[in-house]
Amino acid sequence: MIRAKKIEEVREQIQKWKAEGLTVGLCPTMGYLHEGHLSLIDASRNDNDRTVATIFVNPMQFGPTEDLAKYPRDFERDCAMLEEEGCDMVFAPEDSEMYAEDFCTFVDMTGVSEGLCGASRPVMFRGVCTVLTKLINIIHPNKMYLGKKDAQQLAVVRRMVRDLDFDLEVVGCPTVREEDGLAKSSRNTYLNEEERIAARKLSRSLRAAQDAIAAGENSSERLKAIITEGLSDEPLFKIDYVEAVDGLTMKPVYKVKDGDLIAIAVWDSTTRLIDNFLVGDPLIEF
Amino acid sequence: MIRAKKIEEVREQIQKWKAEGLTVGLCPTMGYLHEGHLSLIDASRNDNDRTVATIFVNPMQFGPTEDLAKYPRDFERDCAMLEEEGCDMVFAPEDSEMYAEDFCTFVDMTGVSEGLCGASRPVMFRGVCTVLTKLINIIHPNKMYLGKKDAQQLAVVRRMVRDLDFDLEVVGCPTVREEDGLAKSSRNTYLNEEERIAARKLSRSLRAAQDAIAAGENSSERLKAIITEGLSDEPLFKIDYVEAVDGLTMKPVYKVKDGDLIAIAVWDSTTRLIDNFLVGDPLIEF
Repeated sequence: MIRAKKIEEVREQIQKWKAEGLTVGLCPTMGYLHEGHLSLIDASRNDNDRTVATIFVNPMQFGPTEDLAKYPRDFERDCAMLEEEGCDMVFAPEDSEMYAEDFCTFVDMTGVSEGLCGASRPVMFRGVCTVLTKLINIIHPNKMYLGKKDAQQLAVVRRMVRDLDFDLEVVGCPTVREEDGLAKSSRNTYLNEEERIAARKLSRSLRAAQDAIAAGENSSERLKAIITEGLSDEPLFKIDYVEAVDGLTMKPVYKVKDGDLIAIAVWDSTTRLIDNFLVGDPLIEF
Repeated sequence: MIRAKKIEEVREQIQKWKAEGLTVGLCPTMGYLHEGHLSLIDASRNDNDRTVATIFVNPMQFGPTEDLAKYPRDFERDCAMLEEEGCDMVFAPEDSEMYAEDFCTFVDMTGVSEGLCGASRPVMFRGVCTVLTKLINIIHPNKMYLGKKDAQQLAVVRRMVRDLDFDLEVVGCPTVREEDGLAKSSRNTYLNEEERIAARKLSRSLRAAQDAIAAGENSSERLKAIITEGLSDEPLFKIDYVEAVDGLTMKPVYKVKDGDLIAIAVWDSTTRLIDNFLVGDPLIEF
């Protein structure tokens, strides 16, 4: 596996691959990889001749009070996992390689990016759109792989790619879960034992809503109440949001239908966790 | 010359050219072409195997009180001029081809875009950056040609290309002038005879500053005073700005040096005109 730290190294390698007529898949990550990330690599390897992972804890998408400094990092472990999974190149730039001191351009969005996580984390999607624009321009992937766990991010990036005419396909990959149902996340490492046990209530409350939909419920108010009930008996939790929205526009819906998104964000003590399902998705198992 | 109205037509043609190993130059315009635009086409033809012009009066870069509706248009005349100049393809999309009804993404900038024209026309550079990002993503040019007459636009686009890692070279082409020194602009057609005569005072006042620099003056305050004096005896004029700034960052300078930008914007009755020179540029002739 090629390890690159400089934009120019990546450009040169990509140019060689493109000259050979090879297709390239991009899996952007912030590192501290888990099986969710590896499923992106796997999907990319199935679809493309070459797969590039990026590891970059993007400072632009963290707010001033957020967890940039303590975000978990282990580059050697990540590289071993990527190599084992058959990734062809990892691009792990320093901050200064991505953002010159006088960097002043950004890509942003209204609408799709504004509710849900965009409301609690106002700079996040600007950071995500800007860094992905850069990575797309450096790597020119044929396809880009993102996890469905970050459902609003997926919707935002799909919209950005459409609006700005980026010439690539965005592929959303299913959320990978722990055996007890908790969605895999690098931030799960922040949880102590008690918080980790509490965290199961996210997926369980979503599953209760899935069961209610299967039994005929389609009122978003009722479904949100079912989820809120499943979360609110946990003293460690502070609910950030429980929402039912259109899967493309992220606008609230009143009656849910297939393709709508039911999404939650919860502070589990000091760690913010998110989870979701699309109406019509397979049932969450635990 | 190929005339394209749809993004997909352009993509297909560009793909064919790229597959043949041909290089592509892009000359983005808002149409109603003059010799300034044709000099871009000429420069692109010298540097590239194929040249694409775009004609799109971009609604996103006009403020609500600006001249979008009355901006001059003559597509057949423009096509005849482009064909005569040896342009290979013109892309002239409808608004709806560029901006879906639910379009919500934008590219914007702080700093470089904020003074000068950015102060008087706050949405302009957001519109310019967004539409050029789209055109670059559709056309994938090796080089893009812009006029130095729009000096801040050139600085903004250079910064955007650097910050977002677009893989192309931005080429600035010298301002083309009428015999009496007036910088060519599609908006010059708005001027009646009296206003057209007054308009000569823009280039003449800049030339007076150039002469002062040649004679050893380097105080930006003194140079701005010389220009303001040359403009303020014209009753039709309302000065928007007279500035001396760094040529890359657009930040005000106190002592001018080679590469700094002296830029002016003036309302000539109801028409806003801009002009500028870089310190070290050839003298403006009339």
